[in-house]
Amino acid sequence: MRSEFEFIRNIKDKYGLKRVGDDCAVLPKNARTDLVITADLLVEDVDFRMEWTRPELLGHKALAVSLSDIAAMGGTPKWAMLSIGIPKRLWRGKFVDKFYHGWFALAERFRIELVGGDVSSSPDKVVIDSIVAGEVARGSAIMRSGAQRGDSIFVTGSLGGAAAGLKLLESGTRYSKLRRRKNDLLLRQLSPTPRVKIGKYLAAKKLATSMIDISDGLGADLHHLCDASGVGARIELDLIPIDENISDFSVDEIMKFALASGEDFELLFTSNSKNFSRTDSTPITRIGEITSNSGIVELASREKTIRLPRSGYRHF
Amino acid sequence: MRSEFEFIRNIKDKYGLKRVGDDCAVLPKNARTDLVITADLLVEDVDFRMEWTRPELLGHKALAVSLSDIAAMGGTPKWAMLSIGIPKRLWRGKFVDKFYHGWFALAERFRIELVGGDVSSSPDKVVIDSIVAGEVARGSAIMRSGAQRGDSIFVTGSLGGAAAGLKLLESGTRYSKLRRRKNDLLLRQLSPTPRVKIGKYLAAKKLATSMIDISDGLGADLHHLCDASGVGARIELDLIPIDENISDFSVDEIMKFALASGEDFELLFTSNSKNFSRTDSTPITRIGEITSNSGIVELASREKTIRLPRSGYRHF
Repeated sequence: MRSEFEFIRNIKDKYGLKRVGDDCAVLPKNARTDLVITADLLVEDVDFRMEWTRPELLGHKALAVSLSDIAAMGGTPKWAMLSIGIPKRLWRGKFVDKFYHGWFALAERFRIELVGGDVSSSPDKVVIDSIVAGEVARGSAIMRSGAQRGDSIFVTGSLGGAAAGLKLLESGTRYSKLRRRKNDLLLRQLSPTPRVKIGKYLAAKKLATSMIDISDGLGADLHHLCDASGVGARIELDLIPIDENISDFSVDEIMKFALASGEDFELLFTSNSKNFSRTDSTPITRIGEITSNSGIVELASREKTIRLPRSGYRHF
Repeated sequence: MRSEFEFIRNIKDKYGLKRVGDDCAVLPKNARTDLVITADLLVEDVDFRMEWTRPELLGHKALAVSLSDIAAMGGTPKWAMLSIGIPKRLWRGKFVDKFYHGWFALAERFRIELVGGDVSSSPDKVVIDSIVAGEVARGSAIMRSGAQRGDSIFVTGSLGGAAAGLKLLESGTRYSKLRRRKNDLLLRQLSPTPRVKIGKYLAAKKLATSMIDISDGLGADLHHLCDASGVGARIELDLIPIDENISDFSVDEIMKFALASGEDFELLFTSNSKNFSRTDSTPITRIGEITSNSGIVELASREKTIRLPRSGYRHF
């Protein structure tokens, strides 16, 4: 069965769509500014489960995933639209008010204005389409396609926490205010932090040659970046910043969480600089280098070098 | 149970949302141009039924409903995003390709560029969020809020066809290439024509003081327009342009279709002009006048004058 990535590539080719295929579309706004805009569809029982989350956390996450796309272009988020389909049983209760409460709490942190959207009933499942627009200096949006051989590869924060959180949720752990370490992992999954500040910094200082956010998994998203840039990559296992809270899991699980699982919403970018001083409390770690092996991502460890598969989250 | 209109009004007040509540949000683009943007969520078994439509018609309609919102601001549509959630059983077949075929056929007529969106799986039902952006000369977007006492009220095209088409679908009639008259009604429901050209004309010539598209029904949408403008309205039954194909239905049904049912996607606007020469093949009909009776919509017939209720399509 074709994946959604193949489908989008086909549509892009068939209809000659030039702006499709990055984290955001980039559209000219005025002489000094470009608009960057993204849409993310979240469907109950595919992207979230009601019994695993809380309405406020879901509202936060719906906005956060789109903010992460704006961050991945180096944009400053400005305004949003929110379309939501709600089953009648939930409309009657507090769900919607709490959902918007969570959404607006994050929106206020980034001074984002809600300008529109739609509210509809839905037969059974909650569906959310989150649209966020941002701005970036004309021509300064950081695309997936700009990586060059020899560039260093960096990742913000740490990886694997969101997938470990998902694993805990699948095995019955629920979010509460008591258990600190597990809650941190659950919150990585349920309430991600978009790296807006770092994204803006990289664009303003013209420090990154390419960027993507890690929504499908490091392996998958590094492949996406390499495909768009027509390059390859070599990353070193020992350099990958693993979430410190996942050390209780087996080595196999840790590798799967950090390399082949999505939703960490960290930024993955390339630069011809070799070092970054920390711009805030979020670390930036060099994990490897861009190569000329178009489409090939290598993972080097002390023992051996393997080809990293494209595995990551797929809808189809 | 609160309606979605009440809910949106509450959110608007609570969070101080200035741009919410019209057919589109209006955002400054540059010194000469404003951006108008809208999102419309279409959910299977709420907004459409798979067995009543065809994938191409659904693709057309998903775009058409948003184009109608752009038309209602007087905007020129420019670009779009499309988010779609698809059950796996449909992903395997031809549905998605046909859906996009219908979408792009309409997009090409209006030279609209698809710039982004999302593709997700969905557990059971098809969900579509259609986002369209357009442009209008700075400060020239036609809002719902500009109607003045004494303005004439106009409607484009004819009313009632979409609701009659829905009634036929509910009673088992299906679209085919054979039965002309019934097919015309089914197509009013399944494949509406957005009044983009007339909307643009009204904005360019500054002919309309307020405008809305008829998506919820003449009674409901005229109330929305009067509420936003702080005025009332008096319309005359004999002047309302009824779809000529619905004459076989009973008088009660015809009234319900034309006054209290949605989805005709005609434009309802006010003007201080009394007459419009036809701008193209679509007629523009004067149906009444704006009054100072804030919030009250009167319907006058030869026998009597009644207060027109707010009835129209409600999700909740």
